[in-house]
Amino acid sequence: MTRPTFVRARRPEHKQQRREAILEAARRLALESGVRNVTLGGVATAVGLAKSNVVRYFGTREEIYLELLSEAGRDWHDAVVQRLGAPTPPGDVVTVLAETLAERPLFCDLLGQLSQHLEHNVSLTAARAFKETALELTTGLGRAVARAHPELTVDEAVELTHLAAWLAGCLYAASHPSPAIAELYQQEPHLLAALCPPFLPTLRRALAALAAGLPTLRDQPA
Amino acid sequence: MTRPTFVRARRPEHKQQRREAILEAARRLALESGVRNVTLGGVATAVGLAKSNVVRYFGTREEIYLELLSEAGRDWHDAVVQRLGAPTPPGDVVTVLAETLAERPLFCDLLGQLSQHLEHNVSLTAARAFKETALELTTGLGRAVARAHPELTVDEAVELTHLAAWLAGCLYAASHPSPAIAELYQQEPHLLAALCPPFLPTLRRALAALAAGLPTLRDQPA
Repeated sequence: MTRPTFVRARRPEHKQQRREAILEAARRLALESGVRNVTLGGVATAVGLAKSNVVRYFGTREEIYLELLSEAGRDWHDAVVQRLGAPTPPGDVVTVLAETLAERPLFCDLLGQLSQHLEHNVSLTAARAFKETALELTTGLGRAVARAHPELTVDEAVELTHLAAWLAGCLYAASHPSPAIAELYQQEPHLLAALCPPFLPTLRRALAALAAGLPTLRDQPA
Repeated sequence: MTRPTFVRARRPEHKQQRREAILEAARRLALESGVRNVTLGGVATAVGLAKSNVVRYFGTREEIYLELLSEAGRDWHDAVVQRLGAPTPPGDVVTVLAETLAERPLFCDLLGQLSQHLEHNVSLTAARAFKETALELTTGLGRAVARAHPELTVDEAVELTHLAAWLAGCLYAASHPSPAIAELYQQEPHLLAALCPPFLPTLRRALAALAAGLPTLRDQPA
């Protein structure tokens, strides 16, 4: 039996395939041109579906990217837990956090878009699924970090993990300048040197300072 | 002689008045509904000009907000320098940084939009003016912070100032959730408690940890 290519997916496994194809197209487009430049129409075109068909699977562009952020977060969690599973000198824990983030540009781009964009224009259901995942992952990461870095309590390690994710988002944006800023930096090396933070060393150093500093705050009032 | 209300401004003082009126309208709209929700058309309507007239003064919406960010940055710089001019225990320096940021919600909103939005769609001239101001202000702030907090070198104090600005931007966005996330937080207090950082204490604590931790990194390889 021959079938037209783009019939509506009715069987669960076909629906799952469509869902995966949409996520894959959104992932590829974001890696090519940055999350901020991808539209729902662009994703629909890339996956060969009408926009009205894409929204059967994800209500909005933002819901697609929240789902990709959850996936990327799980992947980051697993990488950190695996690398910290081997004996790690406490000082290398922040290197693991920073390197695993630097190895995941799409994750960092998504983190930078999160509060201002990806959490807008989403259903309560999508928001709840995302936030429950975020809580589970940051709790798990905090425990793994505290085990490998015994000077930190679990609460401090969770705090460090949150700060790592926030800083990764804003440093990624600052270290990947817009065309206008990139042109300016080429003309003015003193501005490049002073204002364009190299992602990995800047993040690693900030996390090392935080990990050293957080335990010194224990006796201070909140 | 009577004149129609909205003739083109020809004299320098009239041009300056128009410019100020545009900035003031953009500032007011951003305070009312958030920088992300303000369009160039909205600014033009608020100031009673055609869009084509507004772009004689600022090429794009982003150039208007870069200019407001420069102004707000100067205001922050002056407030910090003034408060640190009085004798300040070193431990209170980060409180001054955090409190002066918390008192400036539009500045924090703009900082959160900077790399991803406000530095796009701007002329090289606007980009250069903004970045030269940013360099001058962070250098000045670094010197003022180092004078009041002698455990920090000027370079470390400049670093702390940059981190304060980045963190203020992302914490502001995270602590001012979208309608969907706000509704979720109302239903799920455990997610609110774990994932919605209160702006001022979170920023203050992160800066205190950074200020304590940065000097411990001096003997480590970069």
